[in-house]
Amino acid sequence: MEDKKRFKHTMPVQIRFSDVDQFGHVNNSVYFSLYDLAKTDYLKKVIADTELDTKVVVVANINANFFAPIFFSDQIQIETTTIQLGNTSFTLLQRAVSLDGGYVKCECRTVMVLYDMATKEPMPISDEYKKAICDYEGKTLEELAKN
Amino acid sequence: MEDKKRFKHTMPVQIRFSDVDQFGHVNNSVYFSLYDLAKTDYLKKVIADTELDTKVVVVANINANFFAPIFFSDQIQIETTTIQLGNTSFTLLQRAVSLDGGYVKCECRTVMVLYDMATKEPMPISDEYKKAICDYEGKTLEELAKN
Amino acid sequence: MEDKKRFKHTMPVQIRFSDVDQFGHVNNSVYFSLYDLAKTDYLKKVIADTELDTKVVVVANINANFFAPIFFSDQIQIETTTIQLGNTSFTLLQRAVSLDGGYVKCECRTVMVLYDMATKEPMPISDEYKKAICDYEGKTLEELAKN
Amino acid sequence: MEDKKRFKHTMPVQIRFSDVDQFGHVNNSVYFSLYDLAKTDYLKKVIADTELDTKVVVVANINANFFAPIFFSDQIQIETTTIQLGNTSFTLLQRAVSLDGGYVKCECRTVMVLYDMATKEPMPISDEYKKAICDYEGKTLEELAKN
Repeated sequence: MEDKKRFKHTMPVQIRFSDVDQFGHVNNSVYFSLYDLAKTDYLKKVIADTELDTKVVVVANINANFFAPIFFSDQIQIETTTIQLGNTSFTLLQRAVSLDGGYVKCECRTVMVLYDMATKEPMPISDEYKKAICDYEGKTLEELAKN
Repeated sequence: MEDKKRFKHTMPVQIRFSDVDQFGHVNNSVYFSLYDLAKTDYLKKVIADTELDTKVVVVANINANFFAPIFFSDQIQIETTTIQLGNTSFTLLQRAVSLDGGYVKCECRTVMVLYDMATKEPMPISDEYKKAICDYEGKTLEELAKN
Repeated sequence: MEDKKRFKHTMPVQIRFSDVDQFGHVNNSVYFSLYDLAKTDYLKKVIADTELDTKVVVVANINANFFAPIFFSDQIQIETTTIQLGNTSFTLLQRAVSLDGGYVKCECRTVMVLYDMATKEPMPISDEYKKAICDYEGKTLEELAKN
Repeated sequence: MEDKKRFKHTMPVQIRFSDVDQFGHVNNSVYFSLYDLAKTDYLKKVIADTELDTKVVVVANINANFFAPIFFSDQIQIETTTIQLGNTSFTLLQRAVSLDGGYVKCECRTVMVLYDMATKEPMPISDEYKKAICDYEGKTLEELAKN
């Protein structure tokens, strides 16, 4: 499947009993904790961890489509890729996929802004970061700029 | 302020110590628990509670803009209104507003679908429901159809 | 009721939809978030907030009895009191009480240790702190030492 | 180590970014979600799953000692064993252990009661359940009765 190749970063996640609501479904708010978990791992792997101390990656927009409920018994994997890379922001595409059948339960776009904690202003993504993301995703800066 | 009048439903929410992350900010995933809390109260007030046993309101899309972090010390109120009313779905607009200054911290659109638990299919929103929403919001069906 | 007088500090807490599990009960782990919320408010009211920056109050033991489930519709209040005050530690007694009937749903003892973040060692509770707690609870140091 | 042999059931758990509080420590309330996760898996493995539909295992008491904070970077495993088996109740001992060094971060005893959802009364643990627990733990009923 074409689509599958886009996600280099995958992370199996653990569903907790407390994540499940009265209808037996994983609560919508929990999805974002799971996306967060995968996002943290993605950033750690792709970008050097050390620089994240002085700059912080802040979420500006989240846009999620919920296709099917996640149940406690589901084996879920979060798939993460960068689909857009701008000057001070970048966009992640993430999916929650059931390992039993490969069904996409939810899909989420997250716009993130690099933020300087000292000046409290957005700051340019360094060329080093941009290169690290392009290298990891196997895409050029031009390809990631236009999406 | 024009904008303020749109939100008839407001609900002060309680921030928990466990909601706050390492940067002193309320975690993004928590916002959706707070929106959920206000949404549940909104639906209970606007639509007759009893019918919600056999039909369930399912979230299809969440689209949230994060403008500023919420801190543990912030007094937050969730404001909720229906901005679109379709055949089987409706869209809520919600905001997390700091009571100290009226600053909008986050804004979220949630598309919800009425879902029949027995047939596992989307089902039409009844005229009774539609009327209840229109009456509460002080808008006509035409006004809520086009947004 | 004798017992009721013991709790000077009461705090109504908000139950979230995401707190409720598959059986319609508030998940056990949520109780501790609610106790935490009340505890934070208690400490802020009783002890000067400013000193808590350099010292941190760390939980050493939690002992909770669960008497009855909490439901989403319950109006819950957390009641908090200090029942023991030692040299480097103190013990809080907290209860989750349903406002509709005064039924005690859960009771929890929490042993807390004052901890110096710089030396990473337990540190003596200052006389000022001890006095603040005794004054708030209307008890002598001797009364709070023996429990 | 003698002690280690006691825990037949071990389960690595995933720490989420949202589990971590302002001090960089996993929030106390999260521990109980992790214990819960391991407990659910333990019961599923030891006792036949199917019977748990009509009877529910309810928590009566939780008693936890916190020895050291858990950090986001810690690899944590929950260890679970039954230490007491009574007529209508049983007691689990669980530990949160850091895989890097085997350090015990927290230890928790949970008293659980078998509860009949229909009659809303505690009910005897069946001989079949008792045998399943004894067999799994490699202990006799007499050994598990006295602790």
